[in-house]
Amino acid sequence: MYRVAVWGFGAMGSGIARSILSKYELQLVGVHDMRREYIGKDISDILELEEPTGIKIYDSPMTMIDETNPDLVVIATHSFVDVVKSQIISVIKKNVNVITIAEEMSHPFYTHTQAALEIDNIARRYGVTVLGTGVNPGFVLDTLIIALTGASLNVKSIKAARINDLSPFGPTVMETQGVGTTVEEFEKGIKDGTIVGHIGFEQSIYMIADAMGWVIDRIEQTREPIVSNVSRETKYVKVEPGMVAGCRHIAKAYMNDELIIELEHPQQIKPELEEVDTGDFIWVKGNPDLSLAIKPEIPGGKGTMAVATNMIPAVIESEAGLMTMADLPIPRALIGEIY
Amino acid sequence: MYRVAVWGFGAMGSGIARSILSKYELQLVGVHDMRREYIGKDISDILELEEPTGIKIYDSPMTMIDETNPDLVVIATHSFVDVVKSQIISVIKKNVNVITIAEEMSHPFYTHTQAALEIDNIARRYGVTVLGTGVNPGFVLDTLIIALTGASLNVKSIKAARINDLSPFGPTVMETQGVGTTVEEFEKGIKDGTIVGHIGFEQSIYMIADAMGWVIDRIEQTREPIVSNVSRETKYVKVEPGMVAGCRHIAKAYMNDELIIELEHPQQIKPELEEVDTGDFIWVKGNPDLSLAIKPEIPGGKGTMAVATNMIPAVIESEAGLMTMADLPIPRALIGEIY
Repeated sequence: MYRVAVWGFGAMGSGIARSILSKYELQLVGVHDMRREYIGKDISDILELEEPTGIKIYDSPMTMIDETNPDLVVIATHSFVDVVKSQIISVIKKNVNVITIAEEMSHPFYTHTQAALEIDNIARRYGVTVLGTGVNPGFVLDTLIIALTGASLNVKSIKAARINDLSPFGPTVMETQGVGTTVEEFEKGIKDGTIVGHIGFEQSIYMIADAMGWVIDRIEQTREPIVSNVSRETKYVKVEPGMVAGCRHIAKAYMNDELIIELEHPQQIKPELEEVDTGDFIWVKGNPDLSLAIKPEIPGGKGTMAVATNMIPAVIESEAGLMTMADLPIPRALIGEIY
Repeated sequence: MYRVAVWGFGAMGSGIARSILSKYELQLVGVHDMRREYIGKDISDILELEEPTGIKIYDSPMTMIDETNPDLVVIATHSFVDVVKSQIISVIKKNVNVITIAEEMSHPFYTHTQAALEIDNIARRYGVTVLGTGVNPGFVLDTLIIALTGASLNVKSIKAARINDLSPFGPTVMETQGVGTTVEEFEKGIKDGTIVGHIGFEQSIYMIADAMGWVIDRIEQTREPIVSNVSRETKYVKVEPGMVAGCRHIAKAYMNDELIIELEHPQQIKPELEEVDTGDFIWVKGNPDLSLAIKPEIPGGKGTMAVATNMIPAVIESEAGLMTMADLPIPRALIGEIY
């Protein structure tokens, strides 16, 4: 059994911990979180399990590693390389493998070249593997696209869309996607960086391009308000007609000035109220043309917890270095019991 | 550039050769075929290319290997382990990697245990890799299913269907699928083994089960006639109402006496005449349920040529032994020019 620790016990980290607990070939050995009120507690208190697990929450990630001796640490703290880089390196230097769900770490070689090469170099030196993954980036708009092209004799261009429902998410996501704003507030939010849309388009594009041997000239991104024609409401936000129900984020990548990869990710609350069908869609143009649909879309939270958990054995067994989903064997569900 | 030779220059082998010719990172160096009228010819004569390629057709596979020094040989001769085993071993003993499109080689560990272990053992001894692949088995009803489960927290069961159109195929396929027979002739053909349906269900099931950590008790297969209600006709066969338009082949795999994997592959001519939509469909039952559709289905011939070509670099770069698609990095299209 592989010993696994989790760094960051928020919505994703605690879900990943629960998923690890359920798997026969994984053993959850420790958790680290910043919240003072969590420290020293058995994780069963936070996860509301019936029985204590004997697994405690540490206030220091290094103490957690020293005392629990994990084979791998899952880092679920933040989206950005600038934040997680030092966390990743601190784990590597304990000779421990890393999976992170930081979106920017899914393929940082072009967007954060220096940090990527530094992490890769240190990981090789310490003989451990680092992987950034999640449902997207990490699966839908990159890994699955790459796999589908495997059945193509010749690929001319790729288009894909992930059309999802933000309704289950809380206030933070509503704010970063601009849900519930006026169009003016939305435009202002995009300008000042408070409304960001999807994080990971560049990483997905570079992962696809690298796998295919394509050289990308430039990537253009647009973030448009999805203006609602009807009233939409969730537990956390109310959208009147004319207000913003979400963000339509589009990324276009060019090779030799030709559009070669187009990824679209419109995220909104209650899409069904305007008869928008959610789903994950991939169109590979080439010989032959291929058209794939997953309806409804793979749910974001569960999908990220699943991919991060399911890749643990492959990462531990991989050769050393900073890997991407395109470097490792195809993902697969690990067996276990529902926890 | 990797040097590649092709053993078997029928419909699939010649298509794979054409695909290899198109790829920047591959160099086709030789071809072997049994047909007397091909021997010594430049492949451009058979492929009807405008320019000679300098690549000739050898009457001996061993001479081809000795004279062309390939990194890998693609074996496209037959579906069955019993036939290709000695061919594969003869290539391994020249220290050359192998991809074969023999359906039974895609995961022979349970169906042909002794041959699989022998090939694996010899491949490791000679430091080369062997892979059996194709569109199905090899991609649709195994690799793609396994990859999709990677986004699942918990898989309870899997169902998948490949609903395709046999209309483009020739007389041999019509016979082995029973197209154009009466129901009585079909039943007789199933009994005497002249009508076989799909080859590869067991291999796909064991590949999925191995990847998931499932232990299969038993596999049950049924082959039923698809009786046509209308007249259907192709270049090679004519089906009157009441006659057989194809074979509905179904495989069910059980774990602890529970149905856990169900694969369906109804193959017929002109399915659109009875409003049957073709496509590749995967349903993963678990947490969450996932439903994937590729419409129309990935075409069988092109898909097999593509997967066999696109896996060449991964096989050459892999560690030694008999591998399956579940062991190697996700497939991806290689770049090249249309040939």
